Parts: sequence; structure tokens; C-alpha cells
Amino acid sequence: MTIGIGLLGLGTVGAGVAGILATPSGRHPLVGELALRRVAVRDPARPRPVELAAELLSTDPEAVVDDPAVDIVVEVMGGLEPARSLILRAIAAGKPVVTANKAVIARYGEEIAAAAAAQGVYVLIEAAVGGGIPIIEPLKQSLGANRIQRVSGIINGTTNYILSRMAAEGAAYADVLADAQRLGYAEADPAADVQGGDAADKIAILAGLAYGGSVPRATIPTEGIDRLDARDVAYAAQLGYVVKLLAVAQAMPGSQAEQLLDVRVHPTLLPKVHPLAGVNGVNNAILVEGDPVGQVMFYGPGAGAGPTASAVVADILNIAGIRQATGNGSNARLDPLLAAGSWRPCRLVDSAVTSHRNYVRLRTSDRAGVIGAIGTCFGEAGVSIQSIVQFETQSAGDAEIVVITHEVCEANFRQALAAIEALADVQAVAACLRTL
Amino acid sequence: MTIGIGLLGLGTVGAGVAGILATPSGRHPLVGELALRRVAVRDPARPRPVELAAELLSTDPEAVVDDPAVDIVVEVMGGLEPARSLILRAIAAGKPVVTANKAVIARYGEEIAAAAAAQGVYVLIEAAVGGGIPIIEPLKQSLGANRIQRVSGIINGTTNYILSRMAAEGAAYADVLADAQRLGYAEADPAADVQGGDAADKIAILAGLAYGGSVPRATIPTEGIDRLDARDVAYAAQLGYVVKLLAVAQAMPGSQAEQLLDVRVHPTLLPKVHPLAGVNGVNNAILVEGDPVGQVMFYGPGAGAGPTASAVVADILNIAGIRQATGNGSNARLDPLLAAGSWRPCRLVDSAVTSHRNYVRLRTSDRAGVIGAIGTCFGEAGVSIQSIVQFETQSAGDAEIVVITHEVCEANFRQALAAIEALADVQAVAACLRTL
Repeated sequence: MTIGIGLLGLGTVGAGVAGILATPSGRHPLVGELALRRVAVRDPARPRPVELAAELLSTDPEAVVDDPAVDIVVEVMGGLEPARSLILRAIAAGKPVVTANKAVIARYGEEIAAAAAAQGVYVLIEAAVGGGIPIIEPLKQSLGANRIQRVSGIINGTTNYILSRMAAEGAAYADVLADAQRLGYAEADPAADVQGGDAADKIAILAGLAYGGSVPRATIPTEGIDRLDARDVAYAAQLGYVVKLLAVAQAMPGSQAEQLLDVRVHPTLLPKVHPLAGVNGVNNAILVEGDPVGQVMFYGPGAGAGPTASAVVADILNIAGIRQATGNGSNARLDPLLAAGSWRPCRLVDSAVTSHRNYVRLRTSDRAGVIGAIGTCFGEAGVSIQSIVQFETQSAGDAEIVVITHEVCEANFRQALAAIEALADVQAVAACLRTL
Repeated sequence: MTIGIGLLGLGTVGAGVAGILATPSGRHPLVGELALRRVAVRDPARPRPVELAAELLSTDPEAVVDDPAVDIVVEVMGGLEPARSLILRAIAAGKPVVTANKAVIARYGEEIAAAAAAQGVYVLIEAAVGGGIPIIEPLKQSLGANRIQRVSGIINGTTNYILSRMAAEGAAYADVLADAQRLGYAEADPAADVQGGDAADKIAILAGLAYGGSVPRATIPTEGIDRLDARDVAYAAQLGYVVKLLAVAQAMPGSQAEQLLDVRVHPTLLPKVHPLAGVNGVNNAILVEGDPVGQVMFYGPGAGAGPTASAVVADILNIAGIRQATGNGSNARLDPLLAAGSWRPCRLVDSAVTSHRNYVRLRTSDRAGVIGAIGTCFGEAGVSIQSIVQFETQSAGDAEIVVITHEVCEANFRQALAAIEALADVQAVAACLRTL
């Protein structure tokens, strides 16, 4: 039984998908039952890394969606529109959708899921997070027995590449970014990556799956690496930590009716022995902590044509597989695990009530008693300190003091910082990073 | 729609499963639709970590399988018989099976799969490999687009615990084993773990799924850690390696009709930067290399009641989910990904034709010219050497020489070793370990 595939987009990922479909030998035999029927491209004349018959190409993506020979619509064009509308169009036509589009899913996931549930079709998104790493399927199909305590991940390859080089070379952010752009690891406009927006899209998706409810993407506190000072990477290393851009979703004590979550994206100090600390370069990794499973981690290439296409085709295979089981899709009932609908409301907590460990770098006068005064401010706010270390600086008369706190309530920590900023010998709170 | 669960065995894992089923709140809502209907135990009077109504318990496992209120049979009793017969009995009754029994699946997987296919029922085995780590499902459902090049894993927690401590403490194998037994990390009869049999069971299962064909368990070359010398762990560390008990299944060039495989279990030197090198203690990790995905790794707790129960319940949920999609199991068609049937014959190659890097430790006279003679033997057999290092020994007049080769054909390597053993100044080939 051949299953017709319509591809929206023939960029890096689309070409990767077409390449897999064209060479089924040695892959799962179900790949051989997939036939690429129609491909929407912007410019049919453009040279491509895959050879496709000219009659497959179309500049009209709606025609690809509507084509009766297309059973599954694969959206790999990216961007918000027309991607969102085309996904909804496919759903309305009763066609399952596979998409790699994290931006659309993070923003319109609820709308798309509601439409898919109403029509009884699957919308699968393995490629939207973690590139080739199987993480969406495991969250949906392998960890449902658990109460998920935390999902934390390095889920942006560009920033991890930059941070890995900053740590290895002691280099400044701007220099490594420029080099990464030259090498193709960072885009000409790197904002979505370096400001954390891409990671926020992805953690919104992971949190939604892990906790069974839609997470409002717009309200996720997000801090990128674009203001990160190389000194903090170096000081962290001396104290036994690495700095990573971490996206975290954590369950908070709440009611039965509603799951409270602490979801955030920010540069974070990880102890060097932490499972995520060794994830370097453009690799991604996601750590899932649950009861009773404990800690499981998924690691691999977070981007790239091949890995992402592997994930897209996995989703196509899952739809093809379940069509065989249910009899060609005429049965509109969905596997609740694969469909992954919402099953409880989720709400983000006010970050003032969350608790974390913190790294603080202060610029101070190099005067006896400064450390005592700082320690007193923390103590009066109820913030207990793990370590307080003075580092050498270039300029005489100045000092840099780095404090690592124990886990403290954010509100108390902010109160301590305000008191410290008011000290005469403290010139500035130069950096403030979350710490695991 | 409530789904009745029959549990065969109420040991550590069985009690873990019962505990999850009894506390569905906060887990996937499908857990709430599972009802524990009958539990087979050997001794109903024995105290258990979970409280179960006395009428649920039965000393007759066949009655549990046959009970009409039982829709899914969960085998967590372990051992070959009666586990195998009970699994086949459930299949014959048209009941899907979930099992954590790697020994049965590694030995009777083909028989069980054939029976399951004939009856149109699922036999799911996520808990059989890697404890709580999702690896079976991802291999079946997330990586089907790939040509799998290699699956390599640390898949025995006991040996990894022992090796981690040998490396950290410089301790001898026998001492750490005794301590591990005292702490409950190793069984009183540790043979299946330390001789590699458990890892061989598991790599047979993983290879079967990765390559789509049954792998003959009995023919897998298997070497454990029970003859590993602490000196080799220490020398490896000095040369930049860690020693792990690795289970590997690797595709070899072959024909379209048949997949040739190099499958083996042995202590292996891994470069310290290898993704598996940092996996310590009772943790497991499996690295899958495929085209086009690249390297993906799955990491987590390889054993224990909670993690294993998490995997068992995941399988139950998958069966429950697909029953909802297909309409209560009356439809006998299977999802080919979830059912994971064989789709090509696999055969193990003669290990003489495989190629590997090797670590060799030689006991020699401490005489000028020995290294030259050894190097000549390797060279004459066409074995190129990466490094050759002499280590200090306690006894005067003796030396220990460690050689690490480049990747060489096993036959050539054996030929070189024979020549070296015949050298007058070489007292013994004291150790020989594969190297990545």
C-alpha cells in the first residue's frame, strides 16, 4: 500500500527527506511504501542537492496540500505564515501532518491540536525539537507512567557551539559569534538563537508534552547568551562549573486541577559532573527527571539536514504504521499517546516564588570588610551562601567578588541584591546567573 | 474503558508496576484506565512493598493468563521457564504481552515473535534492555529512516559499577565485586553479569530491532570483566582511555539479501572524550549511529524497581493507546513499527574478518631491542601501531609494554600476536582488549 507524501519546502531539511524517500534500501521496509507525490518550492529553477522529476515541483503549496494523491503533508518550509495556514488546511482536509516547525507549534500548537483532534488526524513534530534526537516520541510514548519533575535541555545548537568555544578558548562572545557566522553555525541574524527565543519555543513544546497541557510561549522568562561575559565563563570553570544555555520546565507544588510550572531559558552554571555539562558543540541533549524513572537523557545532533530529516521521516513512518493498524485511516479514532492531546491545564508561576541557586559577580572596591558586608546583606535576606571568592582584576583598587548561593527563593535573593547594590563599596552587580 | 492487567510476578519490578497502577494521579491519564485484575505470586503470605487485596493474588500463573478479566499479560517473574510458556499461552489466547525478560527474548524471541504475528498481538519489551531508558521504542519508532551503522552500549549496570570503582580507586576486580555484592549491586552468583552473558542477551535484542532480523544469541562472542586486571584499567587511564564492558552490533558490508553483522561483548578501551566514556556507576547508555541521523545516545538508570517499572507501564500504555485507535483490539492488524517484525535475515560474520583497534599488554625482559622486535612482528603482519609504551614494574629485569594498534583485521592481529609470543624476550601476552 503506497502512501503519498506532499512536501512543503525543499530547503536543507526538505531535500534531506526527499533523499531518504528516494533511497529506501537498508532502511525500515515501510520507507519503501512512501512515495513523494508533490513538492512545493518557491523557485523551481533553483539547483537542489536532490534530483526530482520536474513534474513533482509546484510553486503552489495549497495545491500540494489539496492534491488527492497526497496522503500525508510534510511541512518543512519554516516561518509562521503560510506554514500555519497550510498545516490547518491539511488538517481540515483530513490529512495528517508532519512538521519540523517549532515556531509555529510553540505559538499555534493549541489551535493546531484542537483542529487535529476535531478532525481525528495526527500532527507529529519530532523534528521540531532536538533535530535527530528522539525526544518527542519518548516523551509521548515511553515516559507516560511517570510524574515528570523536570525537563531540562541544551536545545539550541548555535548557542551551545558558541559557549563551548568560549569555554575552550577563553574567547569573547562577539568574536566567537562572528566566527560561527563565518562557518555557518550561526545565521546572519542570530537573534532567535542567541537571545534564547528558539530555545523558548522548544521548551514550550517539551513542557506541553511532559505535563499534558499547553504552556503559554509568550510568558516564558527568556535570557540569551548575548550579554554573557567571557569572565563569567572563566570564573565558573575555576569554581567547577560550565556555563550552558539551559531551557528548563519544572513542576511546582500545586493543585490537582492545575499543574503549576516554572519554565525558563537562561545561561546556567552546571557542575562539571552534571550529565548535561559534557554536551559540547552543536550537539543537543535533554534530561528528563521523573518518578519513578529517575534521570534519563537523550543526546545527539540538534540540527542539520540529515538528523532533522531522520526525525521527519520517523514521524511519517509512525503515521504510516498506525494507518496499517487502523485500516488506511478511515477510522477516525486516535491513539491518545501518539496524538498527545492536552489533559490538564498548566500555568507558569510568578518567578518571585521560585527557588534556585545563583551565581553573582560583583565589582567592588578592594577594601577589607567588603566581603563581610556582602555576606551580611545575603544573611539578612535569608540567603545562605555556598562560596564567596575574590578574583584578581587588572585595575588596582578594584576587586571582583563571585558569590554562589544555596537554593533560595527568588524574592529573597532579589532583596539581598538590592541591599548589596546600595553598599558604598559595591560598584555594580556585574553578572547574575542561575546555577544548578 | 478499563483495561485489565494480569501481573506474573510481584518481585521488585512487579511491585513497582503495581505501585504505579495504584497511584495514577499526575501520570498520563491512560494510567487511570488500567486496572490490576490478578497477580501471580509464589508465596501469597510473603510481605510486599505494595498492599494488594488478598483476592488479587494467585499462586497459579496460568489462571492469571487465562482470566477473562485480564486483557494484557505482564510477565515480570524472570527466568526462562515457566516465563516462556506463559508468554506463549497469553499469545495463544490473543492477549498482548509486556515483558521485562531479556533472557527469554534473547533466546526465544523468534519463536515468540512468530506466535505473536500469527495471532496479531503485540509483545513489548522496553524493560528488557536499559531499565528505564527508552531505547526499544526509539529503535522501533524513531530511527526507522536510518541505515543503522552501529549500536554500542553500556548495558549492564553491575559491571559498569565495578569498572567505575576500579577506575576511580585503582582497586582489584575481586575486591570491588565483593563490595558490590555486599551493597546489593551484584548478585550472590554474579556470573551472568560479570561474564557478559546479560549484556549479550541485551545486544542480541537491540541488534535484532536495529537491523530487522533475528540475531543468534548463542554465537555472539562474549568476554566479561572477570579476568580484567586493575593494571590494564590504570594503564588505559594513563593513555587517555577508560575501560567499559561494551556490547556492540555493527553492520558489515554484505549483500542486499542478507545483513552481515559483527556483534560482540567485551571489555573495551574508550577514548575519554567518547560519549559513552562518562557513563559511570549503575547507569546504562546506548549509542546508535545511523545514516543520516549521525550519533544519538540514550542514557539513564539501567536497572532498579522504579526505572524498570516505568518501562513496563510505558509498554502497557502503548498497547492501551493503540487499542483505543483500533477499537478494543478486535482488529487483528498490527502497527508494523510497534510490532517490530523481522524484515531481513541477519548473520554474524566470522570474527577473523572483522577489524578493530587493540590494546595489548606484554610482559617482557627489560632489555634493549625488545620494543624493536615487537614492532617488527606487528609490522610484518601488516598491523600498524598507534603507540607503544613501556611501563615500570616492581620486579627488576622485567618490563611491561603496552601497544595500541590502529584499526586492523583480526586475522592479521592474531598472526602478529603469535609471532610476538614466540619472541625469546616476551614472557607473556598478559592482556588483550579491544579499543574504540
